[in-house]
Amino acid sequence: MRKRVAVRLLVGIFLICSAVSVAVAQQSALLQHNLMPVPAAVSFTKDRLTIDSSFKVATRGHSDARLQAAIARFVKRLEGRTVLSFTPGLAPDDQMTTLVVACDGPGQEIPALNENESYRLDITDRQALLSAPTVVGAIRGLETVLQLLSADRGGYFLPGVKLQDQPRFPWRGLLIDVGRHFEPLEVLKRNLDGMAALKLNVLHWHLTEDQGFRVESRKYPKLHQLGSDGNYYTQEQVKDVIAYARDRGIRVVPEFDIPGHSTSWLVGYPELGSAPGPYTIERRPGIFEPSLDPTREEVYKFLDGFLGEMAALFPDAYMHIGGDENEGKQWDRNPAIQAYMKAKGIKDNHALQAYFNTRLLKILEKHGKKMIGWDEILQPELPKDVVIHSWRGTAALADAARKGYDGILSNGYYIDLMQPASQHYVADPLPADSTLTPEEARHVLGGEATMWGEWVTPETIDSRIWPRTAAIAERLWSPRSVNDVNDMYRRLAVISLQLEELGLTHKKNQDMMLRRLLRSDDIGPLRTLVSILEPVKEYRRYEQRPQTMLSPLTGVVDATTADSEAARRFAWMVDAFLADAPRFQLYRAEISQALADWQTSGATLGPLIDRSPSLQEVKPLATNLSVLGETGLEAVSYLKLGMPSTPEWRTAAQLKMDEAAKPSGALEFAVIPSVRKLIVATDGN
Amino acid sequence: MRKRVAVRLLVGIFLICSAVSVAVAQQSALLQHNLMPVPAAVSFTKDRLTIDSSFKVATRGHSDARLQAAIARFVKRLEGRTVLSFTPGLAPDDQMTTLVVACDGPGQEIPALNENESYRLDITDRQALLSAPTVVGAIRGLETVLQLLSADRGGYFLPGVKLQDQPRFPWRGLLIDVGRHFEPLEVLKRNLDGMAALKLNVLHWHLTEDQGFRVESRKYPKLHQLGSDGNYYTQEQVKDVIAYARDRGIRVVPEFDIPGHSTSWLVGYPELGSAPGPYTIERRPGIFEPSLDPTREEVYKFLDGFLGEMAALFPDAYMHIGGDENEGKQWDRNPAIQAYMKAKGIKDNHALQAYFNTRLLKILEKHGKKMIGWDEILQPELPKDVVIHSWRGTAALADAARKGYDGILSNGYYIDLMQPASQHYVADPLPADSTLTPEEARHVLGGEATMWGEWVTPETIDSRIWPRTAAIAERLWSPRSVNDVNDMYRRLAVISLQLEELGLTHKKNQDMMLRRLLRSDDIGPLRTLVSILEPVKEYRRYEQRPQTMLSPLTGVVDATTADSEAARRFAWMVDAFLADAPRFQLYRAEISQALADWQTSGATLGPLIDRSPSLQEVKPLATNLSVLGETGLEAVSYLKLGMPSTPEWRTAAQLKMDEAAKPSGALEFAVIPSVRKLIVATDGN
Repeated sequence: MRKRVAVRLLVGIFLICSAVSVAVAQQSALLQHNLMPVPAAVSFTKDRLTIDSSFKVATRGHSDARLQAAIARFVKRLEGRTVLSFTPGLAPDDQMTTLVVACDGPGQEIPALNENESYRLDITDRQALLSAPTVVGAIRGLETVLQLLSADRGGYFLPGVKLQDQPRFPWRGLLIDVGRHFEPLEVLKRNLDGMAALKLNVLHWHLTEDQGFRVESRKYPKLHQLGSDGNYYTQEQVKDVIAYARDRGIRVVPEFDIPGHSTSWLVGYPELGSAPGPYTIERRPGIFEPSLDPTREEVYKFLDGFLGEMAALFPDAYMHIGGDENEGKQWDRNPAIQAYMKAKGIKDNHALQAYFNTRLLKILEKHGKKMIGWDEILQPELPKDVVIHSWRGTAALADAARKGYDGILSNGYYIDLMQPASQHYVADPLPADSTLTPEEARHVLGGEATMWGEWVTPETIDSRIWPRTAAIAERLWSPRSVNDVNDMYRRLAVISLQLEELGLTHKKNQDMMLRRLLRSDDIGPLRTLVSILEPVKEYRRYEQRPQTMLSPLTGVVDATTADSEAARRFAWMVDAFLADAPRFQLYRAEISQALADWQTSGATLGPLIDRSPSLQEVKPLATNLSVLGETGLEAVSYLKLGMPSTPEWRTAAQLKMDEAAKPSGALEFAVIPSVRKLIVATDGN
Repeated sequence: MRKRVAVRLLVGIFLICSAVSVAVAQQSALLQHNLMPVPAAVSFTKDRLTIDSSFKVATRGHSDARLQAAIARFVKRLEGRTVLSFTPGLAPDDQMTTLVVACDGPGQEIPALNENESYRLDITDRQALLSAPTVVGAIRGLETVLQLLSADRGGYFLPGVKLQDQPRFPWRGLLIDVGRHFEPLEVLKRNLDGMAALKLNVLHWHLTEDQGFRVESRKYPKLHQLGSDGNYYTQEQVKDVIAYARDRGIRVVPEFDIPGHSTSWLVGYPELGSAPGPYTIERRPGIFEPSLDPTREEVYKFLDGFLGEMAALFPDAYMHIGGDENEGKQWDRNPAIQAYMKAKGIKDNHALQAYFNTRLLKILEKHGKKMIGWDEILQPELPKDVVIHSWRGTAALADAARKGYDGILSNGYYIDLMQPASQHYVADPLPADSTLTPEEARHVLGGEATMWGEWVTPETIDSRIWPRTAAIAERLWSPRSVNDVNDMYRRLAVISLQLEELGLTHKKNQDMMLRRLLRSDDIGPLRTLVSILEPVKEYRRYEQRPQTMLSPLTGVVDATTADSEAARRFAWMVDAFLADAPRFQLYRAEISQALADWQTSGATLGPLIDRSPSLQEVKPLATNLSVLGETGLEAVSYLKLGMPSTPEWRTAAQLKMDEAAKPSGALEFAVIPSVRKLIVATDGN
């Protein structure tokens, strides 16, 4: 399998650039590069640039504080990985400098959609030359250099390479919902670092929700004072985040979700609502009725004041106004609103929201901002300069593009739904079968992963974002033809390790949470269980294990991640093992060892769970872990002996699988299909 | 061994309070309580207070914002551990409330030395009553309640208890040196949480050093602008830290170390120095020459201005002026200073520093602060209201106390020197053999653990502070008679796990660092190696592995912690095994398994190290890991067979130990004495 991946990639490289020397084929390390996102064009050479304590960087051409800070961060990370101490400071640009960063100019003063993010990288035995038209391009290229760092018996080195790179889409974002659960500054910062490592360029900051209003308004202070439980960003902190993002070539697009999703606004200003109130901060997940009253002038005056204040705070050209999931129930029940609609000839709630959006658009225009909103804002009368953010899908996006609207995709990128990276990876804003004309296609600006905040805390959010978002980042940056899922997963594992150096906790917090649950350092058996579990997908978590925004997110489900790597590896070994019929030799030892580990871990967990009340909810899973191991071992035994199982055994075994497939604690086994395959294969045919 | 600990503790409990029911002896879970620091007086009963989702807190008597915030944090942690959702908010104080916090008053407005930190805790089947004269006392008691949380098949509960507690010493601190390496706000905050969990009450904030000036001065901005590489705390951030500490009943004592240790001051203001300069920020560790000029009036004017500004910023009654390690070399070489000394009859550098301190004391008094400084400031003419901070030891402290000076101890608490917790634990500011009168003894205020910053970063500092500082916290809080090292270690392991819930990274960052070094998730063998290694002690790290303040602290030594738990456990098993002569049965299986693991891990590590240049420095250790395992297994084999080894074998084996005992990468094995014991025992006598 791994071999097949290597060959495919090699072919890919050959297609991209004809300059590849045949010698490359002998340098197996280079066949499997770990670049993510895959660059637009890359060819490796036999060269090798040594990285040792003499490493030095020089700039050539344009240089400024942002570039120098980026180089300083780069050097720090390179030192951290290699444990080498470099001489501090920049070198003069001479022939002896290891890395030269040649930059033509600063690029946009404020990170913008039309920023040129391209760069070239030429690495020879003698030197690495990173050239870019803008500082942001150079910043992107520095990440590539870090990903190229290699090591062997001879020490650290950069492989010889000729690389030309630029993004496929200009809008590559990550939405972080801080409304439902607040995330402190350091969480945002480490995730901005993660975004920069994957060449993402938009932080979509979902700042207001029914469950929380998270930004300080000096004009309307009751918004954050009464709507946030004290968990909001001061304007100084907002500026800090924006500067931090700008340093990394990342735009910050704020979202103020209206007219629905606005309960937290109405706690302090109930007079803006479509019902009299009073309002309290919403604690449940879901869609709620509170909505701004679109028929009252005071509401627009308020929005003019508030959004004007925010427009001055957030320098990005775009402002996201949400506009989603407003069901208009408050509107239906409000006689004044009904009378207003009748008087103005507004025929239904959709039309009323369109009216609201038209008024809103004028306010944003007044404050120099372009409007972006969710699918729902797309109404016939909407001007062409708003951007559609599609949770509905590529069809809706294409439809908008045909009508002349710019759009970005989030359907397929809902990382809160616990789907595997492979599923996100195949979601393409411009699928291969798109019928858009090239001109229409240019309206498709890119996409955004959405980290909705119902079930994440500072402790767990990184493990929901990473590493899966890296696959989305690749989809949005790399050529459409880069779509080998196996190779994506291979590189994803490498990148996931590298992301830890940025302080991201997606890996290290899991063991910590298991230690807390068990009140012990001996977490082996629980880790075995958790490694092949996944949280239930889509919106089933809340159905199965209802909680509020105030509940502790410290359960087993919170310590468990989507897209089980252990289950994927197991599935892959089982496929190879079954394809090795009738020998059934390939990976048999590894499969048997894994199954035996399940069997014993399940048994060991029993008494541990008994003394840990917080683990009670996974007790059935621990029992079934043993059953999975035992049944799998029986199946392997049949196959090994070349002896078909009885239909009775297979029926009983499948019934056990049905039982094991039942979720518990909002968790389910990710290995059941593989064990079922083993069972089926014992029929001897 | 464990049994002996339990019995000892039981005896201890009986001594402390006679009310203990005999039934306690049947409740084995209660014999080994996990309280740290051990309370002044505690007796367990048969009662059991259930903790389930009906849990509620009420206040009685005094209540204020600080108390309510402390209760909210307490509830959050209780929810986090139990994964239970409680009804939000405080309950009315009725008979049904699980926990009642009865507080007499707010205590000191600003946390102060004379704060009453005592509390009582009475837990019955029906209710827990925490009563305290001050909010700080209640805060201390809430930590005790969290430490009492227990679980079994019946769920979570608090054991019945009657507990009366107050600290032995009023000054229980942790010095964090942010001068040599800067630590961001979140590092300080999570460590303040850790301090509060262990009832420590002073953050000694070592803010200035040769290697960095870390606080914003609006009066003399070149101090932080030129002296910090941009790594300093704004005054807003300082206020944030002080408020955060106050919320937890912790004082913040700033240190501005003068006249030596002042290079970073002189970068911006060379005119204050005793040599003309120019000065640059120091990058090396060590003691350096730059010193303020004590003979010039402008220096005192500057200090009046700067310390006045700081006195207004830091509300604590004390200000630490350092005063240590000034060798006066610049003074010796400066003719103007020499002339001044001659003219004023100042006979030597000690007298000159005393003159400086006398002037400084007047400045501090003017700004309403009491002076504290290191041993060196103690000069005959020093007024009695300054506090001596002793790095020299209890003799110096006792000497100062006899002279009427208050003092605190840090000798014995230098946690940067990588000594085991057991060593810190026996260091007592007022040892049992102290000859001080009760009145003199009252001058001994307590002590401080010192986290000097040469070799710590935000990534590693927690693992240098915790869990060892908990042992020091116990020494400073608990009665002198609490001194069972084995029981301390048993409880330390429990507390260490609990500290993780505060965001402390002392445990979780180790695996992360090993993954980075290996560039792999498969860190098992490296973890085995690291688990029985310790960084070399005292000041040998720099001698063996010189680095500067700019060097990466990401090597194996940085991923390794002092006071190896695995080595301690191994030593303990070996002692039991050898005491089981001639049977040699006890723990034989466990010892053999550990030795076999060393043997195979060492062998596995070889090729992994070869492909990881950053691991080269531990290659000899990996080789010796195998040798240790092999030799140990041979010894066990001799003992098992009851067959004495030959003198030749023993000599050769001890030579191997000599070889394995050599440090590499500033690391050394902590298990050599145990393996040597096994070898010696094979002589058959």
